[in-house]
This record gives sequence, C-alpha cells and structure tokens, in this order.
Amino acid sequence: MKRGILFVVSGPSGAGKGTICKELVRRTGIALSVSMTTRPPRRSEAEGREYIFVSREAFMEKISRNAFLEYAEVYGNYYGTPAESVRDILDSGGDVVLEIDVQGALKVKASCPESVSVFILPPSMGELRKRITARGTESDASISLRLGETLKEIRRVGEYDYCIVNDRLDEAVDRLAAIVVAENSRAGRGLRELVESYMEEM
Amino acid sequence: MKRGILFVVSGPSGAGKGTICKELVRRTGIALSVSMTTRPPRRSEAEGREYIFVSREAFMEKISRNAFLEYAEVYGNYYGTPAESVRDILDSGGDVVLEIDVQGALKVKASCPESVSVFILPPSMGELRKRITARGTESDASISLRLGETLKEIRRVGEYDYCIVNDRLDEAVDRLAAIVVAENSRAGRGLRELVESYMEEM
Repeated sequence: MKRGILFVVSGPSGAGKGTICKELVRRTGIALSVSMTTRPPRRSEAEGREYIFVSREAFMEKISRNAFLEYAEVYGNYYGTPAESVRDILDSGGDVVLEIDVQGALKVKASCPESVSVFILPPSMGELRKRITARGTESDASISLRLGETLKEIRRVGEYDYCIVNDRLDEAVDRLAAIVVAENSRAGRGLRELVESYMEEM
Repeated sequence: MKRGILFVVSGPSGAGKGTICKELVRRTGIALSVSMTTRPPRRSEAEGREYIFVSREAFMEKISRNAFLEYAEVYGNYYGTPAESVRDILDSGGDVVLEIDVQGALKVKASCPESVSVFILPPSMGELRKRITARGTESDASISLRLGETLKEIRRVGEYDYCIVNDRLDEAVDRLAAIVVAENSRAGRGLRELVESYMEEM
C-alpha cells in the first residue's frame, strides 16, 4: 500500500503558518500532528488540541526511547513532535501536516528526507513588523531582535521544497492544498505496484 | 523576473492527454504550445489550432536552424515543437503546456531539464482497450500491437516527475492544475530575488 506523506509547514513567527494549517485541516481533513510539551497549559488551551501536555519525567523518558521526530528546549520548557502517532498515520496511507518552527523543520527534514517541506513567508518585512507590533506584547528592542532572527530564517528558504508568500490567507491555503494534491501525484511514490497492475491485466 | 515553467504532458495514445490539456487551458488560460507538421491538414483542423502546417522545405530549414525543442518523422510526415514561441512565453514569465507523445516528451525533458513532466495513465489496460476498440478504426491485430507499445511506454513512467491516472476527467484536470500551482511555489524558482527583497526592506 502507498505510504502517506508528511508535510512539514514552517516559517518565521508571525508569518501565519498556524492559521494556514488549521484552514487546510478544516478544508481537506488532513491529519494534524500535535506537539508534546512540558509547559503548563494556558487557560485557552485544551489537552490534545494545542499540545499534548506531559510532565518533564514523561518527556525525558520519551527522549530516552527516541520517541520524537525532533525536540527542543525553549526557555526551560521542552517541545517535541511524537514520532509514533505520525508514523502510524503515514503507515496506514494517510498524509500528516506538521506545523513547526524553522529549527524543528530542518531537523525533521534531516531525519525524514522523504517529507515535503513548505516555508511560509510573510508578505513583506514591513507587514511582519506591523503584525508583531499590533500584538502589543513586545518592546521595540525585542521586535527588532525578532525581525533580525526572521531574516536569518528567511535566508534558509532554499533548504525547503516549497515556499508560499502569505499575502492573502485563502490563496495561501489554496497553494498549500495544491502542493498536497501534487505531491500525491509524484511519479516516484508507490509507482511499482501501479505499473505491475497494468502488466498483470495484459 | 521569474521565468515561466514548461509543463510537458504525455502518455500513451488513448489515455486522454489531449482532452485534459484542452480543459486545463480553458480553466486557467495557460498557454498551449502548438506543434508544427508537414502533414496536410484534415478537414476538421484549423491552421494554428491543431497544428501549424508548413511545407517540407520550411520544416527542413527549421531543423537546420535548430528551431525545434524536438521533432520526429512518423509515417513520412514530420512533427516538431517550435522552440522559439515556447521560449518567448517562458522568458516573459508565462507558463506553457506541451502535449506530446512519450518519445517526444523524453527528448524535451532531456533538452529542457527544468521542465516539469506529467504522465497521463489510462485507468486500466482493459479500459484503454475498450476506448481504442470503440473508435472502430483498427483491426484486432493492430489493437494488440498498440497495447503492447502502450505497456512499454507505461514502464517509462518513472522517468517523469508526476503521474496522473485519468479515471475521471474533472479529477485529472484538478490534479494537473494543482501541479501547475505547486510547481509555481517551488522554493528553487526565482528565490534569490525574493529573499533580497526582504533584506532590502530592513
């Protein structure tokens, strides 16, 4: 049976990758990988929706079993992509979309080279600055630092398979949906069985 | 400026590549490359629509000028893909779709490795036999010979970038349209300028 495809959707913070992925899931029903974290849930967050919330001990135990596609420590909390649930869906022929930061995406691409990586770009740096400023949660110095980091991340776009500029949400989702359809038509995937089925009919 | 992409759509005779390409052109307005031939026009054919009809002398002169992406002689008539018109559209940033037989497609892919090749498969060999029989223009022996050729062509599907099974026309056109959108989102295409535009804004 044909294996599913892992779509790794990434890009700088503020580019809109989360919204795009949610809309893709709503439209197409593609499975979304939910990350695991040791960070305590915020009031708006539900177990298994934003994250799977686990204790630090449980997380460490999973690291020792090599149970993550990738993981990272950020400000003292751990975040990771559980390998097993993703592999189960792929093995049963389903596609999975994984929304993740740039560092995590490049780790996943390295450990799963057959995955398809998509970089979401903000329409412009000016627009990104506007979006971050509008949140009102960060100081000017912190925003400048963030935009500097963003530029470093954007320089890595060439390491991705696809790149979508998130100018209008609907168009960006259309493009991501088209990438999912196109990758499922790749001649390299599950081809031997297909060709054999034609041979057998003769 | 970003260069256009050449989509080479091919597959065995009877798979429906012509219908799919016409429908893609109708839906998306993508430019269709029209082949040149020395064969005289049939009554139903219009100059510049099915083919550009030229004299044998004119065709030979074009061969000597290297003016074809590929050409072939079939039953004493010449058929070729004019390079100039395709290149003009690509240079101006437009995409082009080229519908062509398997031998021609592989020649174009060799001479234009940056082109995107799509193989159209019939839903099954039984269905293909039915379609060819329904035309009523060929003997049983000729049909068997044709299906044997088709199998040889299907074995080459791995040399293509994409493969679409033409089960239902609408779905096949959806897939081809998705491939056009996805390829236009490839991270490799026209990327340097994009990244530089972000740098300049800072």
